[in-house]
Amino acid sequence: MIKVGIIGAGRIGRVHSESITKYVKGAEIKAISDIRVTDELKDWARTMGIPNVYDDYKQILQDPEIDAVLVCSSTNTHAPISIEAAQAGKHIFCEKPVDANVERIKEVLSEVEKAGVKFQVGFNRRFDHNFKAIKDHVVSGKIGEPHLIRVTSRDPDAPPIEYVKVSGGMFFDMTIHDFDMIRYLSGSEVIEVYVAGGVLVDPEIGKAGDIDTAVITLKLANGAIGVIDNSRKAVYGYDQRAEVFGSKGAVQTANDTNSTAIYSSDTGVIAEKPKYFFLERYMQSFADEMICFVDSVVNNKPTLVNGNDGLQPVLIAIAAKKSLDEGRPIKLSEII
Amino acid sequence: MIKVGIIGAGRIGRVHSESITKYVKGAEIKAISDIRVTDELKDWARTMGIPNVYDDYKQILQDPEIDAVLVCSSTNTHAPISIEAAQAGKHIFCEKPVDANVERIKEVLSEVEKAGVKFQVGFNRRFDHNFKAIKDHVVSGKIGEPHLIRVTSRDPDAPPIEYVKVSGGMFFDMTIHDFDMIRYLSGSEVIEVYVAGGVLVDPEIGKAGDIDTAVITLKLANGAIGVIDNSRKAVYGYDQRAEVFGSKGAVQTANDTNSTAIYSSDTGVIAEKPKYFFLERYMQSFADEMICFVDSVVNNKPTLVNGNDGLQPVLIAIAAKKSLDEGRPIKLSEII
Amino acid sequence: MIKVGIIGAGRIGRVHSESITKYVKGAEIKAISDIRVTDELKDWARTMGIPNVYDDYKQILQDPEIDAVLVCSSTNTHAPISIEAAQAGKHIFCEKPVDANVERIKEVLSEVEKAGVKFQVGFNRRFDHNFKAIKDHVVSGKIGEPHLIRVTSRDPDAPPIEYVKVSGGMFFDMTIHDFDMIRYLSGSEVIEVYVAGGVLVDPEIGKAGDIDTAVITLKLANGAIGVIDNSRKAVYGYDQRAEVFGSKGAVQTANDTNSTAIYSSDTGVIAEKPKYFFLERYMQSFADEMICFVDSVVNNKPTLVNGNDGLQPVLIAIAAKKSLDEGRPIKLSEII
Amino acid sequence: MIKVGIIGAGRIGRVHSESITKYVKGAEIKAISDIRVTDELKDWARTMGIPNVYDDYKQILQDPEIDAVLVCSSTNTHAPISIEAAQAGKHIFCEKPVDANVERIKEVLSEVEKAGVKFQVGFNRRFDHNFKAIKDHVVSGKIGEPHLIRVTSRDPDAPPIEYVKVSGGMFFDMTIHDFDMIRYLSGSEVIEVYVAGGVLVDPEIGKAGDIDTAVITLKLANGAIGVIDNSRKAVYGYDQRAEVFGSKGAVQTANDTNSTAIYSSDTGVIAEKPKYFFLERYMQSFADEMICFVDSVVNNKPTLVNGNDGLQPVLIAIAAKKSLDEGRPIKLSEII
Repeated sequence: MIKVGIIGAGRIGRVHSESITKYVKGAEIKAISDIRVTDELKDWARTMGIPNVYDDYKQILQDPEIDAVLVCSSTNTHAPISIEAAQAGKHIFCEKPVDANVERIKEVLSEVEKAGVKFQVGFNRRFDHNFKAIKDHVVSGKIGEPHLIRVTSRDPDAPPIEYVKVSGGMFFDMTIHDFDMIRYLSGSEVIEVYVAGGVLVDPEIGKAGDIDTAVITLKLANGAIGVIDNSRKAVYGYDQRAEVFGSKGAVQTANDTNSTAIYSSDTGVIAEKPKYFFLERYMQSFADEMICFVDSVVNNKPTLVNGNDGLQPVLIAIAAKKSLDEGRPIKLSEII
Repeated sequence: MIKVGIIGAGRIGRVHSESITKYVKGAEIKAISDIRVTDELKDWARTMGIPNVYDDYKQILQDPEIDAVLVCSSTNTHAPISIEAAQAGKHIFCEKPVDANVERIKEVLSEVEKAGVKFQVGFNRRFDHNFKAIKDHVVSGKIGEPHLIRVTSRDPDAPPIEYVKVSGGMFFDMTIHDFDMIRYLSGSEVIEVYVAGGVLVDPEIGKAGDIDTAVITLKLANGAIGVIDNSRKAVYGYDQRAEVFGSKGAVQTANDTNSTAIYSSDTGVIAEKPKYFFLERYMQSFADEMICFVDSVVNNKPTLVNGNDGLQPVLIAIAAKKSLDEGRPIKLSEII
Repeated sequence: MIKVGIIGAGRIGRVHSESITKYVKGAEIKAISDIRVTDELKDWARTMGIPNVYDDYKQILQDPEIDAVLVCSSTNTHAPISIEAAQAGKHIFCEKPVDANVERIKEVLSEVEKAGVKFQVGFNRRFDHNFKAIKDHVVSGKIGEPHLIRVTSRDPDAPPIEYVKVSGGMFFDMTIHDFDMIRYLSGSEVIEVYVAGGVLVDPEIGKAGDIDTAVITLKLANGAIGVIDNSRKAVYGYDQRAEVFGSKGAVQTANDTNSTAIYSSDTGVIAEKPKYFFLERYMQSFADEMICFVDSVVNNKPTLVNGNDGLQPVLIAIAAKKSLDEGRPIKLSEII
Repeated sequence: MIKVGIIGAGRIGRVHSESITKYVKGAEIKAISDIRVTDELKDWARTMGIPNVYDDYKQILQDPEIDAVLVCSSTNTHAPISIEAAQAGKHIFCEKPVDANVERIKEVLSEVEKAGVKFQVGFNRRFDHNFKAIKDHVVSGKIGEPHLIRVTSRDPDAPPIEYVKVSGGMFFDMTIHDFDMIRYLSGSEVIEVYVAGGVLVDPEIGKAGDIDTAVITLKLANGAIGVIDNSRKAVYGYDQRAEVFGSKGAVQTANDTNSTAIYSSDTGVIAEKPKYFFLERYMQSFADEMICFVDSVVNNKPTLVNGNDGLQPVLIAIAAKKSLDEGRPIKLSEII
């Protein structure tokens, strides 16, 4: 049984808290911290059985009983807090992205290595039942050599413009998961990126300096080609599909729905829309990544989403932004 | 190359004419007869390249050049014309049902045997790509021993009441195909029938002495159980599905549609309705049964839907009617 | 917050314990009883945070702090324990079937009514997301008047013969859920039952006096017709589907699978098999029926599966057995 | 009724001959020509009822009774024969591609315009039921503004290397249809192309100077983005799918199969593979494009695949080849 501290009590910090409480047998939450400790937060912590609520994450880092921390604070604090946590000898689960700056990520990874602590990045989709099924087909050899990896990733609605302005852009905020998925499913590294993107959903997104629609082509080290299509707004819901095509076959997944019901009437044969958004679609994967993290700490195993897995998607996102800006394919070797 | 005469120029006679002209390389139509020879019929025959149009089918039977006839006239004439055709030495394709009277069917079969001519009954659904696929799975042994055979057969709309009154009832007019399908897919004979039926679609059908909705359970000689569900009106279109479940697996078919298009919008994920009715759904099977019939004549092979295949569904229909009337399961041995 | 006692610590008692602990905010388990209190049970109770483990359920009934009990003991004790619990003023969740004897069920219902306690029967499938989706379509009026209700219910493998001998027979053990489903989906009562059944899976089942395969036709009070097909062994897994067809449309559900992955290779296009068995398929429904039960206790609402819902399927099962034995349709009015 | 001459009696010339004979009521074939007139060809023409077989296409062009010609000869002769045919006042159905040289295509279009004859290019997939269903959704406004157009186009097996060497390369031989499909489904023109391609199927294809796998991104004049993924070898068969995603919804199609049968066994739930190759998948579309062509001649309507529809895909193919060679996106304005 390990003791965990959670840094950041926003939406994702609470999702992880619930997962640990309900599904993770080997861990208990000793403390949660947030820069704003409200009565609501205290009440929530009480119902969750979390004994300590701090307004300073350093109290968590200083607690010798706490074995591991979850860094769920705002993105710009992921790197410095992770560094402090490593220096304090805590195992680290860090939300994505680790940072938008490559040098800072490398610094985190260096400190983690020095401290010899576990470090897992929050690419929860690797734990999704559908994407895992694709991965299993690839690993088993049933696909043969992968030739094409396709990811469709479309949100049900664009975020508020105020969020768009501070999000770091679509590639860092949304596509970062898809970049990870291309690496995960292909088992190879991205070496070149080309983006065709535009503002088709909402002109305000363009005014905020971002795009909302893109097709991203990725050349991989093993010769395979990846392609992602993104939209900030699919009116029918959260569209999350993937396909790997190779020399021996192909495997693809469809969206999850709330039921398998099919209604036939004079207007057509109607199935349910996809589950609405990431909390509905990926809830189980949030639990499973936590089970995996605790298992790697308790049983001293490597984490399934390691430091390099945190670094590479950021490199790809930087290359993607550069490709969009310059209208040409960008080699990752230009970035590093 | 054989020469064919078509007796009856109604809808089904014309369907077969078009099939022979377009798809059957080994046959040409020398004559068509109908009790009402209109100008429209003559024009149609001309465009089809049919050289002779008669108002008396006997002219077809008397033509020594004609090898085979298609009996597409009204149901009550199927048996007598088939008998005459057999006596004239013509091979016979006879539309279903051969007759509603068991003795008359037996007389037909007896004459056919005496004459040594081919005799095929128009159970075209055996030639449907979907039902053939089920049959292939059964025959190949992939299902193992069949345990359950399910047929869903629902029309898109009830026929006119005037037709209902002369149709012989739902079992003879509509379910007769499903009785054949149960025999075909199971590879076994029906020994007992039980019907739960009612008038749920249109009270006028009840007033005409018929039902419009039924679940029919059939005990088979090999121990398997068949079940048919019928409705005269499925608002979403012609619903034609089947399933065979056995010791090693199950196989089922879905409806055919005009396209595989799936439309996702804020109201749901919408596929096409089934093809509208039997001409749309089964067009290719009408051609394929004709190719099969001509092949059995030209190459002296057994027909794939023989005399007994014409008799058994009529026995089952009689038992089904009796079961509905008496509210109890009826053994076919009670009928014969 | 209510306190709950669980009577019977077998598989289903533990399933409910886990559901309450993880998913039911308004309840906590104060005690569990079992006629055999092993060290393993004590350990398990400790990890679940259940403070008391008794070898006599009366200790639970005597505890004034306990508001509600779950009767998860062996089937023959459901009725007497429920009666005692009612007399002790406890709200009752009773596993199915309440009893195989109609009079004893009526006695339970009478005591429950006298005591004014809540009584819910464990027909968990009503809480399954797929069957609920069908029910929602029916209730919303999208199906119109129901005409046909079909339930396919096939187990992945036959139970051990020793179990078959004491199970009360397939209708009481397995089909009882399907009888409930026909009532639930149709919103009507069964008035007549006809069974075509046989021993096709395993002759030992026949020697034990039971059957393993059946098609069951049910006439409903509203004129609709229900049909169930059962098998004790579907080699491809747990097959649980249903369809309601009516005047305005039809709704059907497919099986749940572990993922939506489709693998295309030179041997075909392959999807996953259904989830293996009832614990995999219906896990969430077990939690949801518990949430519903606690809600009805806490907020004094009617339970969603009431006493009559416990009685009717037993009447139908008795009629089904009689139909099988006598080879004729049986009216429920013959039973009562 | 018009009279048609067919120039070129290879596979596609014969496909069109059969379509006209079977399905096109308004046309009859008066002559067919081929540079090699064999006994087999004469026999075939006789069974088809084609009265004249020439070894020189000029005999067709000189026949004043012939209204229209089908140019089905080798690719390099499409342009010169089309020019001669236009000058002879014949309506023209020309197989794709019109030519690999832009100037020659423009010359053809100029002569066609001068002569005032109909000119239709053989992009038969526009007449496919699935792609037409997508197009119908787009045209009806159900998709809203198109944002993403995806085409998956994978052959079941690579052509012989000898064919690869003379094919003009994958873009001209195979992807040309997909370029047309992007234009057709989007209703917009391609303005820029980027290709990520490689040799992953067979190194011999690389030695022959071609590629066998590609992801092609296309920027469209209306702001939408197109993406095509190609492979020369999908072991599961001919993979032909498309999707249009827009502001109001998305529509996608699946592959056609020989039946809807689904086989469930202990190894999985298995559907049929896609129809094998283009003759199986697109047979009806070959007939329908012919019906459309004859209709446009007989009723003096514009053809549905006009001269510009012949030109644009060639421009895109040239740009695609240049993008592959130079590793950068190519604007079509660089080509023209």
